[in-house]
Amino acid sequence: MSSSTALLTDHYELTMLASALRDGTAHRECTFEVFTRRLPNGRRYGVTGGIGRVLDAVQNFRFGEAEIAQLAEHGVVDDLTLEWLRDYRFSGQIDGYPEGELYFPGSPLLTVRGTFAEAVVLETVVLSILNHDSAIAAAAARMVSAANGRRIIEMGSRRTHEESAVSAARIAYLAGFTATSNLEAGRRYGIPTAGTAAHAFTLLHDSEQSAFESQVAALGTGTTLLVDTYDISRGIDLAVQTAGTGLGAVRIDSGDVGVLARQAREQLDRLGATNTRVVVSGDLDEYAIASLRAEPVDGYGVGTSLVTGSGAPTAEMVYKLVEVDGRPVAKRSSHKESRGGRKAAIRRYKETGTAVEELVYGVNAEPTLGPHDRHLQIPLIRDGKLADDLPTLEQDRERLRRALVTLPWEGLKLSNGEPAIPTTFLGA
Amino acid sequence: MSSSTALLTDHYELTMLASALRDGTAHRECTFEVFTRRLPNGRRYGVTGGIGRVLDAVQNFRFGEAEIAQLAEHGVVDDLTLEWLRDYRFSGQIDGYPEGELYFPGSPLLTVRGTFAEAVVLETVVLSILNHDSAIAAAAARMVSAANGRRIIEMGSRRTHEESAVSAARIAYLAGFTATSNLEAGRRYGIPTAGTAAHAFTLLHDSEQSAFESQVAALGTGTTLLVDTYDISRGIDLAVQTAGTGLGAVRIDSGDVGVLARQAREQLDRLGATNTRVVVSGDLDEYAIASLRAEPVDGYGVGTSLVTGSGAPTAEMVYKLVEVDGRPVAKRSSHKESRGGRKAAIRRYKETGTAVEELVYGVNAEPTLGPHDRHLQIPLIRDGKLADDLPTLEQDRERLRRALVTLPWEGLKLSNGEPAIPTTFLGA
Repeated sequence: MSSSTALLTDHYELTMLASALRDGTAHRECTFEVFTRRLPNGRRYGVTGGIGRVLDAVQNFRFGEAEIAQLAEHGVVDDLTLEWLRDYRFSGQIDGYPEGELYFPGSPLLTVRGTFAEAVVLETVVLSILNHDSAIAAAAARMVSAANGRRIIEMGSRRTHEESAVSAARIAYLAGFTATSNLEAGRRYGIPTAGTAAHAFTLLHDSEQSAFESQVAALGTGTTLLVDTYDISRGIDLAVQTAGTGLGAVRIDSGDVGVLARQAREQLDRLGATNTRVVVSGDLDEYAIASLRAEPVDGYGVGTSLVTGSGAPTAEMVYKLVEVDGRPVAKRSSHKESRGGRKAAIRRYKETGTAVEELVYGVNAEPTLGPHDRHLQIPLIRDGKLADDLPTLEQDRERLRRALVTLPWEGLKLSNGEPAIPTTFLGA
Repeated sequence: MSSSTALLTDHYELTMLASALRDGTAHRECTFEVFTRRLPNGRRYGVTGGIGRVLDAVQNFRFGEAEIAQLAEHGVVDDLTLEWLRDYRFSGQIDGYPEGELYFPGSPLLTVRGTFAEAVVLETVVLSILNHDSAIAAAAARMVSAANGRRIIEMGSRRTHEESAVSAARIAYLAGFTATSNLEAGRRYGIPTAGTAAHAFTLLHDSEQSAFESQVAALGTGTTLLVDTYDISRGIDLAVQTAGTGLGAVRIDSGDVGVLARQAREQLDRLGATNTRVVVSGDLDEYAIASLRAEPVDGYGVGTSLVTGSGAPTAEMVYKLVEVDGRPVAKRSSHKESRGGRKAAIRRYKETGTAVEELVYGVNAEPTLGPHDRHLQIPLIRDGKLADDLPTLEQDRERLRRALVTLPWEGLKLSNGEPAIPTTFLGA
């Protein structure tokens, strides 16, 4: 795998570039905007994910010998264009919503300014990252809300592409998950990893008891024992017999986990293991997590639904040319219309801190900022270089935690409906 | 990005390994099986995708200094386990369905044999690849069937993770797509790439006409002109004026593409451009493609629905321990039961070549092969090394094309229903 991101690009971006270099329009100053026309599945809010990865991808967008050779060999573009690509460095400006920010239909999530040539080629890689990571971010935020303060661990790597898995683990952490099972996410992003044993470990041994004894010997009594390989009630008895009442947790991965969690809690309490936690997993999504709120569950393991965006695997963002040499431009045919012109946004809040409106405005018509309003875009890249004081993943995690608190109460409902706050367009 | 796949692994695989190395069970001879309990969304067949990538991932599963340092620093496993991982090379046997083969619930898609230690650590990366790529493969095969011989181009990179995009493009080609927009897939897998221009190219120019003139000058009259930036009818007039009646194709990306394609065909014919093709794109899935069968469409561009598995973004495959030192093992609690023991499969056919049954059998109870039956698993890895004569991507592509022809006619229906052929279990 090349560390260059330059070929994570659609063929047509380079053919557009080749045509535009020939006719001279390639050097026109352009503004591209990333936004989404709607939130998927009647969701109430979106969450920006992947901004940090986009910045890395822009920095690594370089055509080295391998990339140039590929394009030359297959005649994708002419020699003039190859020469131009060889020296490619994005030298423009990027502003955008920080990672972990809420967004709504029409929010100007990323604004890329530069020549047509340098900005058009970034379309695919920018959208790939934002569409994937923001889809995961919205699902993850809903799950964390549903878990209502209980621990929640991401363990979906096996159900998605091996590289999506690493990115999904990062986003789950952004959204407030406690840890991930994915070791590469631990290495690459420094986020906590966790895990103990699968059913295979019990099946490997001559008995459930010998499996538990082995695990406790290796990992200590604070470990989590998986008790549903055979009979759950017998499994819990054995677990406490083996580890003592100091056992860290039992995990139940199948069946009606609500009922089973209650039975497990009662059994553990009877056995004196009152501090042993009950962890459940197995096809949980935000609705299942919410439905378990009244049950004595101490932690959730979430897999498939997280990494597939819980029914919305892509955020449907687009990257649209909105301004050429200061002139607003927009497609006009059919239903897919866009608003031309470079835009920015502020979010308006009540005095109580509750968000009331996403106000998107043309940058030449900036409204007066009310006492509780705030600007949503921050500088991300200046003259091709990373802006100063970019937020860390921990800061973005805290940003999202605080932002969710500002939503009107209907905004946190899991059911389908309108966006939590309306988007108003001003002079755009 | 490290080229090692070793940390694309769940934390718990390494803690299981650590416990098993301590108690000696790590060296027991084990068989793990990959299968799926059901096909998603009432699909009639599954298609194996990613087998070639799995073999690469197993070969690259190596713990180098970076990986060992990460595990040591975070205390994931003890020193004994780290020493063992440092020398890790898979030395066992892998048999499986080749890529581009059909499968059904319970088909033994991959059989991994080796010690517990060497086989258990492969679980996550094997499943990640197969679950993603097979989800895409099934969706892609349905789209190719629906396109009924017409050209179909994959252009979904922007709607999925940037690395999933590369794998999805490979799988689309496996399934019979003509080309992909993804340049990295062209480089990595040698598959054809295609593309011409987006709406941004038209908007960049002072007029639609100057955009078309520029594109034709750079890419020739055989190019595809995107005619729906402003008024489609005017766009088609301009396109033929600019390129002449030898224009390669027009593309329509929005609106009611069936109606618009018919109008475009009539207009092109009136203008004498009778060989100019009509290509449609914009939120197409297999149902939309099928519904356009009566329309004069020459080619389809497919994006979001392909890369998200058209409603089934994961294939839900599992990697289960089925045999330990020759003894069948299986989880027994609740509804997630499995069949123990190492298995293989044959597919039975009528004399006419129509498939009638997927027969899964314990390897100690191999049935007599009828005159029209065939074995489904092939050797993939022998003693840790790639087996001889592994099929190429082109051969796998041809395999799938032929396999779809063997399905009973109901098996190619797009509607929900039972699997196209039943799975029978024999002595397993």
